[in-house]
Amino acid sequence: MSNAGNDEIITLGHGGGGRLMHELITEELLVASDTMSADELEDAALIAGGRLAMSTDSFVVQPLFFPGGDIGTLAVNGTVNDLAMRGATARWLSVGMIIEEGLPLSDLRRIVASIRDACAVDGVHVVTGDTKVVNHGAADRIFINTTGVGEVFADPAPGATRAQAGDAVVVSGTVGDHGVAILAAREELGLMGELHSDCASLLSMVSDMWHATGDGLHCLRDATRGGLAAALNEIAMSSGAAIEIEEQAVPVRREVHGACELLGLSPLEIANEGKLVAIVSADHADEALAAMRAHPLGGDAAIIGTVGEAPAGRVSARTPLGTTRLVDLPAGELLPRIC
Amino acid sequence: MSNAGNDEIITLGHGGGGRLMHELITEELLVASDTMSADELEDAALIAGGRLAMSTDSFVVQPLFFPGGDIGTLAVNGTVNDLAMRGATARWLSVGMIIEEGLPLSDLRRIVASIRDACAVDGVHVVTGDTKVVNHGAADRIFINTTGVGEVFADPAPGATRAQAGDAVVVSGTVGDHGVAILAAREELGLMGELHSDCASLLSMVSDMWHATGDGLHCLRDATRGGLAAALNEIAMSSGAAIEIEEQAVPVRREVHGACELLGLSPLEIANEGKLVAIVSADHADEALAAMRAHPLGGDAAIIGTVGEAPAGRVSARTPLGTTRLVDLPAGELLPRIC
Repeated sequence: MSNAGNDEIITLGHGGGGRLMHELITEELLVASDTMSADELEDAALIAGGRLAMSTDSFVVQPLFFPGGDIGTLAVNGTVNDLAMRGATARWLSVGMIIEEGLPLSDLRRIVASIRDACAVDGVHVVTGDTKVVNHGAADRIFINTTGVGEVFADPAPGATRAQAGDAVVVSGTVGDHGVAILAAREELGLMGELHSDCASLLSMVSDMWHATGDGLHCLRDATRGGLAAALNEIAMSSGAAIEIEEQAVPVRREVHGACELLGLSPLEIANEGKLVAIVSADHADEALAAMRAHPLGGDAAIIGTVGEAPAGRVSARTPLGTTRLVDLPAGELLPRIC
Repeated sequence: MSNAGNDEIITLGHGGGGRLMHELITEELLVASDTMSADELEDAALIAGGRLAMSTDSFVVQPLFFPGGDIGTLAVNGTVNDLAMRGATARWLSVGMIIEEGLPLSDLRRIVASIRDACAVDGVHVVTGDTKVVNHGAADRIFINTTGVGEVFADPAPGATRAQAGDAVVVSGTVGDHGVAILAAREELGLMGELHSDCASLLSMVSDMWHATGDGLHCLRDATRGGLAAALNEIAMSSGAAIEIEEQAVPVRREVHGACELLGLSPLEIANEGKLVAIVSADHADEALAAMRAHPLGGDAAIIGTVGEAPAGRVSARTPLGTTRLVDLPAGELLPRIC
């Protein structure tokens, strides 16, 4: 599937959480629609005068079922989390399914049960749905789109443009778990051991953080496709700030670290489905960290860096050797169909 | 692809606008989610205390480009229309794309331009988007989900449960144009002549109808998958009413009639993408009809029948011979991937 030198067709790289998708969105969608705002680059857009937030995500994960969740769990939590990143409580959810003819009904039942269970966690209401079935070979088993509308509780809403020099960078736990778990499930790599996806709703943690820090909570981002590296780059670019992290401060499970070494991947670039990175004013960093650590999903939360002034838009990491390296926006799709 | 007798896998029939999808939604999704309400069976759900409406639709039409529109036009108008059917003005739209690796970038640009142009008609804002690229063979070119949130202007909102005995049944124009145009484009059937899809936004027509009839506008349904037959059956079932139409009163283009005869299809079961059926109180039927006919999309509008008491939930048609036949909810997918 070599498309080298051919920029006239869509490649897998356009779908990653990295530069190619960023270009696709900004050049194609933003330019084509003069009605789009900068909110396009947020996890969720504010609508209805800022009282509500809206976010959409399509899920094409392969395999459908994996340790720690399935495409249904992912589809609910992914959108609930995107809304939470704008300080909004998901209230109403749409579920659109594209199903390949031949999918076992038992698989669909299991996925629908996961959707129900994931919705129950935060009291989210599925209010509208749509099902399309396509002929065998026209889709791969099932794709799910969820779009959520939530009520904004944080005022001002956290936003990717609000990072400022002096802020602390806090991550809510170990990174790379989801991506490596999917890879392990897909490749049946026994060596990964019992690694589970971190797929979970971050809403209650965000609520706790907001109550602890108020408007000191400048930016929130769930580190999905493109991992922590993409999330930090998007914040740095949107805010025109520099972000420097301490590589050794980033929590990474031993198994994830090992798998990444073997496969030549960086844990910073691997997708998470239940981890967020927060940019918090320096005077609220300890409260934010304490709120995260007190939450069941935040036991491994850590302050991993700081926001500086220059070079604007750049993310760098101090290595264990004391050198500094650039943490680039991942260029393509390292792990296709990871979510 | 015979699945006869096997009800344990999803078949193409589950995706149609008919009975199988109805069962799939009610048995699987509604049962699994105790948070779902009867709004599930409406074109759009009312949220935020009834001030807003929300609707989702996935588009898998094949071919992507056809006379009268393309998948982008369809994706915007389909959701704008679903919101309009609850008396809501689409304001905010999400666009989720699943793209097969290898799609020409020029095709994507053309589709995005169609999305922009269709949004411009009603001033709809695309506020959030998502793009996933899957490997070659895992999807067929491009699938698009749109989810819309609109502001409800009609109070009380038209709803599928509100049909009552004595009401008039009004259709906004010729039926079957979209489905037959797609079929013609797909099969390259020269005999269809210059038939275009009727894909269009019905919002301004609905607004005109609302102003003409007020709360006499009981139900609105855009007759998409499953055609007029599905729309009328859904209303009859939701309202517990009987609907009787005069078969000869239903406007059908000569070419559509001819194509249906050739292919053994009923124009009543063919998808439309710019036609609605309205259930209007008898004393407002003339005003509704006049408002439709005064609109550029409603020149062929016609009163086609009446609502009765019994048998509840049944739709019947008086034929040209003076006999009466049952108009059933289409059982399966007559024309897969029609939208």
